[in-house]
Amino acid sequence: MNQPAADNSLPDQADVDALVRTVDRYIDEYLSQRSLPDNLRQAIRYAALGPGKRMRPILVLHSCRAVGGTMEQALAPAAAIEMVHAFSLVHDDLPAMDDDDLRRGRPTLHRYTNEAMAILAGDALMGLAFEVIVTRIDSPALCSAVIGELAASTNDMVAGQVYDTLGEFPGDMPPRDRLEMIHRHKTGALLLGSCRMGALCGGADDAKMQAIDRYGRAIGLMFQVVDDLLDVTQTTEHLGKTAGKDADQEKLTYPSVLGVPASHAEVDRLRAEAHRALDELGPASDPLRGLCDYLAVRTK
Amino acid sequence: MNQPAADNSLPDQADVDALVRTVDRYIDEYLSQRSLPDNLRQAIRYAALGPGKRMRPILVLHSCRAVGGTMEQALAPAAAIEMVHAFSLVHDDLPAMDDDDLRRGRPTLHRYTNEAMAILAGDALMGLAFEVIVTRIDSPALCSAVIGELAASTNDMVAGQVYDTLGEFPGDMPPRDRLEMIHRHKTGALLLGSCRMGALCGGADDAKMQAIDRYGRAIGLMFQVVDDLLDVTQTTEHLGKTAGKDADQEKLTYPSVLGVPASHAEVDRLRAEAHRALDELGPASDPLRGLCDYLAVRTK
Repeated sequence: MNQPAADNSLPDQADVDALVRTVDRYIDEYLSQRSLPDNLRQAIRYAALGPGKRMRPILVLHSCRAVGGTMEQALAPAAAIEMVHAFSLVHDDLPAMDDDDLRRGRPTLHRYTNEAMAILAGDALMGLAFEVIVTRIDSPALCSAVIGELAASTNDMVAGQVYDTLGEFPGDMPPRDRLEMIHRHKTGALLLGSCRMGALCGGADDAKMQAIDRYGRAIGLMFQVVDDLLDVTQTTEHLGKTAGKDADQEKLTYPSVLGVPASHAEVDRLRAEAHRALDELGPASDPLRGLCDYLAVRTK
Repeated sequence: MNQPAADNSLPDQADVDALVRTVDRYIDEYLSQRSLPDNLRQAIRYAALGPGKRMRPILVLHSCRAVGGTMEQALAPAAAIEMVHAFSLVHDDLPAMDDDDLRRGRPTLHRYTNEAMAILAGDALMGLAFEVIVTRIDSPALCSAVIGELAASTNDMVAGQVYDTLGEFPGDMPPRDRLEMIHRHKTGALLLGSCRMGALCGGADDAKMQAIDRYGRAIGLMFQVVDDLLDVTQTTEHLGKTAGKDADQEKLTYPSVLGVPASHAEVDRLRAEAHRALDELGPASDPLRGLCDYLAVRTK
């Protein structure tokens, strides 16, 4: 993949690990105190607390800090968005959907437990994401605003799954427009929602929210272009999930529509756009720059 | 089933039909203005707007009125709870769950479309339920409170599905306690949530909320005892869904644990309890009495 420009620095791994531990502990504690059947709780833990990059919660926390807040203010939406993400992976992996056996190097949840449990654990993860917001954010105004973002981005993501797997488009929509429509919904919506929820918790004014919104849109699309590229350039073993799947399923992807070199150019363009958006925000947004660069150059 | 006591009256069918139309129109309009893939919108409409009793939204509307509000104040949660109910039926009918072909006299959604669409339409219905609340209730305080009820009851319902289909209980929990635990979660949670959300929208004070809560708990359990009885006493053709399923699947039910006569007695006891709870509320709660009696004597 592309190399980061010399003037940008990738996130420090120890800092990232500390954030991941904080978010995981928050989710774990929430699940511990919530009355649930034990087998459901275990299935939810398996799905939400297994290995993973925790990109979305990290974006929430750093977006909050970038607009002047503290990370602690954004822990509930950070946990919530990871739960929504985990739900989407669990349902996406089901036999009737992508029928995947492997996720993050481990058996998918329906392989580890069974299909009924995977359906129900996914459902519970979505519902609990809303619950963690409403039980942990005291200010009704902030709570409503964050729930609004969570609902919109979750529903857009589900719509994106439908476009992606069962897509019906107007017959004259060019492949590239279809592709952007799929990606902006399927992956972009939650990444944008992560940024916006974080900024809400940090008390962003309109100008800062606009900057975060622009950043979130750029990295949201960029993330999926990179994902498409990884699917054709990396091995299953390296990714910890089945590689080459998109081509096997004849999916619309950036490499298949634009070719590999033009897809790389699109990554560069979106990365520059994300950086420009942050000019508004000053040094507090440096970690978001680092995240953007990491997302551009990641190899898994 | 039991006959209603002479001093109670069942709801007027024309009144009920008018409420059903109002709720359906509200859901339909919400779906029309929401950006969604057309095939997903159609699947959601099929699941949420097909034939059905709309018990939960009617409970929301009448609970709002019973505490002094107007029905219009409670339309958003009425629509939301029906969407959650519809989601739960769609996922419950899936091959990996109950594997049902028939629901409300029509093919289940995965039979009408396909499994992937049924999974995704169910997911969308849950997410849109939260969205309709947050976009249609202006007061942040009321919005947060209603979201809190919706999240708690949705998650308790999913937990109830797990207890019911994949239940692991402490080994020494007597069958009747297990049964009540299943039913209070699986069916009772949404019915209680319906009543509580309606009362919140009507501005109930603590005493009125307590009365509505007590009523909701009683009818929530009663509903499922009646359902268990109908499964053993009615035909598939009459019910519009597969009868005799519980016995075939060796499910824990009130008739199987207590026997049919004692189950009828339990219905009578819960019905009396629901009526006593309403004594607090005066004539505005008469429609809730009628609903309770209808739920006790219904034959489908």
